[in-house]
Amino acid sequence: MNLVQHGAVYNMLSLGIASMLFTSIFLWFARDRVLPKFRMAVMVSATVTSIAAYHYFRMFDSFNEAYGNGATEVQGFEGYNVGYRYVDWFLTVPLLLVELVAVMGLARAIQSSLLKRLVPAAAAMIVLGYPGDMKMNVFFEGDASIWGLLSTIPFLYILWVLFVEIGKSLAGQSAKVQGLLKGARLLLIATWGVYPITFILAMNDTGAPSFDAVVSREIGYSIADILAKCVFGLIIFTIARVKSAEESKEFAASEYKS
Amino acid sequence: MNLVQHGAVYNMLSLGIASMLFTSIFLWFARDRVLPKFRMAVMVSATVTSIAAYHYFRMFDSFNEAYGNGATEVQGFEGYNVGYRYVDWFLTVPLLLVELVAVMGLARAIQSSLLKRLVPAAAAMIVLGYPGDMKMNVFFEGDASIWGLLSTIPFLYILWVLFVEIGKSLAGQSAKVQGLLKGARLLLIATWGVYPITFILAMNDTGAPSFDAVVSREIGYSIADILAKCVFGLIIFTIARVKSAEESKEFAASEYKS
Repeated sequence: MNLVQHGAVYNMLSLGIASMLFTSIFLWFARDRVLPKFRMAVMVSATVTSIAAYHYFRMFDSFNEAYGNGATEVQGFEGYNVGYRYVDWFLTVPLLLVELVAVMGLARAIQSSLLKRLVPAAAAMIVLGYPGDMKMNVFFEGDASIWGLLSTIPFLYILWVLFVEIGKSLAGQSAKVQGLLKGARLLLIATWGVYPITFILAMNDTGAPSFDAVVSREIGYSIADILAKCVFGLIIFTIARVKSAEESKEFAASEYKS
Repeated sequence: MNLVQHGAVYNMLSLGIASMLFTSIFLWFARDRVLPKFRMAVMVSATVTSIAAYHYFRMFDSFNEAYGNGATEVQGFEGYNVGYRYVDWFLTVPLLLVELVAVMGLARAIQSSLLKRLVPAAAAMIVLGYPGDMKMNVFFEGDASIWGLLSTIPFLYILWVLFVEIGKSLAGQSAKVQGLLKGARLLLIATWGVYPITFILAMNDTGAPSFDAVVSREIGYSIADILAKCVFGLIIFTIARVKSAEESKEFAASEYKS
């Protein structure tokens, strides 16, 4: 059974590398296939998957060092480094919101106002989640899960901005773009939901995590990451294509069969 | 406790790699998103973060070699190599000033005069700081901290040029660009302040540095580096975008929603 579990995480992390790396390369080259005003959104998407590709390479190596040779317990000092995921999220989660706002092509003042609120909230959400996952009671006596609760506050704020504030700006978009934007927003929220669920499931564990816990956490996080970064980035690219064709007849004529 | 400290430096150096590497890739691709006259500034910013990415890869490996396997003391010859930081700064600190001057779009004679003074002063500041940090009394008997004092002379000269000389050129810029340039200048000075503070704090240490000293130094330097190179480079890019839109209506129309 351990061999199967080990192989599952091993192959899932490798799937993570392949998905992130080649979505990145595709998006970097594909940025020319949209109008200039939408290229920043595509480039930010490519940056997100590039950052994640780096961290999946590191996690793959860290996993093999910690659990190689059929070991089923964390080997003390050389244990699997969960820090990579948090460093990755700290950089990429704010950028995912930048992608979403950038592709909407809003007026500069509205865009700037949205980002000034979403980016710090997203960074705070990740920073506050980390001590809870690490079981570190740095400031509070008692249960470390207080950090999970604190991290929920910026999460709810982001939800509110995405649904109420950005909801207002949807009216100006075409029906097709509205559908895609709503889909992208829903995908973001659904995949982010995986993280607190995993957090709550692991809340009562004490000491070093069991092999079973590491297996389900790593597989869950990897699937959520691929959906939230690669699939999300490709939806952002599709929105940029559709909007480019809507805004320019020349673009539509040169990019599509009439 | 040592595990937490080790993890903190380990993850901070990895955050350094990720920040530097993907700011670089983003800026290399993003140079097309500004007018040709501002592309040099963006490319110099990309060069700075690229050089730093290389050194963070080296420092990450050097740290793991010196402090891997739970060792808490520098292991003789294979100790953590501080030289990487100085080689990095020797190359990147003069270039940070080149970015700042280049993005201002000054007349060629003024730009050339500023760079001829700022670049050698920045290089001298780093070269003079190194023997002090290494506790090397190469020419002076007694306290090696004399080098810290000597290094302060070019630092004060740079401050004077940035605030008095460049201050004069700010008048010709729009209010928005003035605000961004002042912010960039302040960020540069504030982050450079971290280095002498760290220097003074470590001045009374003798012999090999303690693990605690290495931990706080590495975390402080890494945060200062990410702010001074990545955040600074992205502000330079933003200034280049704003100035491009101000100077060309065509650029503004193709890049932004009107």
